Amino acid sequence: MTQQDAGSRFPSVGDGSGMTSDPRFYREELQLTFRNRGMPLEGLRYDATPTGMHYLLIHFDIPEVDLATWNLKVGGLVDRPAALSLDDIKALPARTEVVTMECAGNGRALFSPRSVSQPWLLEAVGTSEWTGTPLKGVLDAAGVGREAVEILFTGSDQGVQGEEVQYYQRSLTIEEANRDEVMLVYEMNGRPLEPQHGYPLRLIVPGWYGMTSVKWLESIEAISEPFNGYQMHSTYRYAQSADDPGEPVDLIRVRALMVPPGIPDFLTRTRLLSPGPVTLTGRAWAGRSGISRVEISADGGENWSDAQLGVQPSRFAWRGWTAQWNAQLNAAGGRYTLMVRATDTEGNRQSVEPEWNIQGMGNNMAHSVDVIVE
Amino acid sequence: MTQQDAGSRFPSVGDGSGMTSDPRFYREELQLTFRNRGMPLEGLRYDATPTGMHYLLIHFDIPEVDLATWNLKVGGLVDRPAALSLDDIKALPARTEVVTMECAGNGRALFSPRSVSQPWLLEAVGTSEWTGTPLKGVLDAAGVGREAVEILFTGSDQGVQGEEVQYYQRSLTIEEANRDEVMLVYEMNGRPLEPQHGYPLRLIVPGWYGMTSVKWLESIEAISEPFNGYQMHSTYRYAQSADDPGEPVDLIRVRALMVPPGIPDFLTRTRLLSPGPVTLTGRAWAGRSGISRVEISADGGENWSDAQLGVQPSRFAWRGWTAQWNAQLNAAGGRYTLMVRATDTEGNRQSVEPEWNIQGMGNNMAHSVDVIVE
Repeated sequence: MTQQDAGSRFPSVGDGSGMTSDPRFYREELQLTFRNRGMPLEGLRYDATPTGMHYLLIHFDIPEVDLATWNLKVGGLVDRPAALSLDDIKALPARTEVVTMECAGNGRALFSPRSVSQPWLLEAVGTSEWTGTPLKGVLDAAGVGREAVEILFTGSDQGVQGEEVQYYQRSLTIEEANRDEVMLVYEMNGRPLEPQHGYPLRLIVPGWYGMTSVKWLESIEAISEPFNGYQMHSTYRYAQSADDPGEPVDLIRVRALMVPPGIPDFLTRTRLLSPGPVTLTGRAWAGRSGISRVEISADGGENWSDAQLGVQPSRFAWRGWTAQWNAQLNAAGGRYTLMVRATDTEGNRQSVEPEWNIQGMGNNMAHSVDVIVE
Repeated sequence: MTQQDAGSRFPSVGDGSGMTSDPRFYREELQLTFRNRGMPLEGLRYDATPTGMHYLLIHFDIPEVDLATWNLKVGGLVDRPAALSLDDIKALPARTEVVTMECAGNGRALFSPRSVSQPWLLEAVGTSEWTGTPLKGVLDAAGVGREAVEILFTGSDQGVQGEEVQYYQRSLTIEEANRDEVMLVYEMNGRPLEPQHGYPLRLIVPGWYGMTSVKWLESIEAISEPFNGYQMHSTYRYAQSADDPGEPVDLIRVRALMVPPGIPDFLTRTRLLSPGPVTLTGRAWAGRSGISRVEISADGGENWSDAQLGVQPSRFAWRGWTAQWNAQLNAAGGRYTLMVRATDTEGNRQSVEPEWNIQGMGNNMAHSVDVIVE
């Protein structure tokens, strides 16, 4: 298998353009959703998402890692290359941080036309307690050379994307890699990582979209040029066309989501509520920023009122919110579109309309929930 | 909200018939897949599926259960009605059983036309170690009356399906409910149930498709007539038309699945392999029966050869298999369709072609994997 000739033999999807305006979904999109799990939105009720409810985005296969032979290679432009066992890493200073992660493609399927890829609606989010050791300590021990400009992270998951055979790889600048909160983690919610979350070791980069938190980490390499691999230059870009190189996706944009109130219809997920006071609840988050405001609308976005903000359990975790709503019968058969939007401490506010880009990245439009009061 | 008037106000899906021959999928089907998680097929490599990789089928919402007020009500036609706390239940004789569960709708989306519902391909399976107490002990303590014919199980998850507002409910005959292996379980893989798996207590009925293993169990009731609720009479039937009452779905049909070999293309999941010997692996299971044979084909089902069977870890759990295949370049650009089929100890063998039914139940057609050797 060589990199050059691995592409065109795969069956084409849709019209082959990689984009579609069809409101229906291709089988290839569906089968990705059975691998890449969403968090049902009632999961917003937990400060820390139960491990089995946290979202998953796995580009290739979940690799099988044998701890007896695994180690983390630290190399490239460093003074003291190393190969660290998991015990070596556990012997380093440990830290636990509550971190909200979100996939950069969350909301992709709400764009039209949309990129034919993992067709997230809104469920690609979760919050966990991650335990590990600061990356900075490992980099300092290795002694990163002055000529290094980035740290390259390589996972052991291998596959083909955009016609390139590749291991999953992403890089960070030296400055980003040395931030206090960036960690090599081996526990999630107080237990060893499950295989699908990166066992035995993964990177966690709080505040960034999830693509940067490389799973099944095998190698950390200090490099002299910015890394230009597939997952950096061909995807995870805010671009307006296939020719537009666009800007790299980085920090998580401000977003609030709501626990859908009432009870669901099985197929359509339309919600039914009885008339009377309802406490709406949910969470809001914004990368490295705080949340300064959450607002609710019960008329599809014409009028907004402030929700009450709860405590933020950590600097990088979602913040709870609640709002009171008096559900009433109305002339529209009891139909309402409830909406929620958040503003971060930098002043960024979610828009009601989608702000389109070709890869379907960072779509943080306000969340809408259709309900019927009866 | 009343049961009679809860239906027609939901938006119709597709042509409204509840069936479609469209190879594309409706948004309603997609959003169900973000709640109802599949097990990526590389998960077949584990004897017990990691909790966060096990499949999930959740009809309504995951309920929030407060252990301080929760109890299990045992009532109906019994001599000694009871309300048992979780501590009461944990004080009863405990047992751990390794059980393979599968959703009755697994394979639904491989039928054409298909029922518009949760569009499973093949991933609705998982195997766990379940710990709890035999149901029979609880029934014996309550003293089920002679006039009782069934035990009705009610979960606390509520919603609307088929225009009926309902709590999720299923029943078993007295004889089935008293089988040794039927359990009330509070632990999965040695830990308390996660919310999405039925915290604090669920039923496990080994050998049956998953719809019978009621989650978030609140009530067990001995009843004098066969229960005829929605989840018994309107769904989980092998029927040929909307008018055909059909036969009830019960035990899991024989099936083998394969860990897809090689590496995947991200979007199409087509597999690439290098030429040379390959060990194909997977699992096979068949409700209460054993597996007597697993066969492999590398030519789309024309010729078959026997796989080697591994140990079955428990009577109700999947059995591993392995088979050697020599992957070679060929005149078809290295393309092969690998297939696997199993035969159970009752002599039932999977068919290569689907055996259609209108609800998309029990589709255990042989598993195919397209690969390219290059």
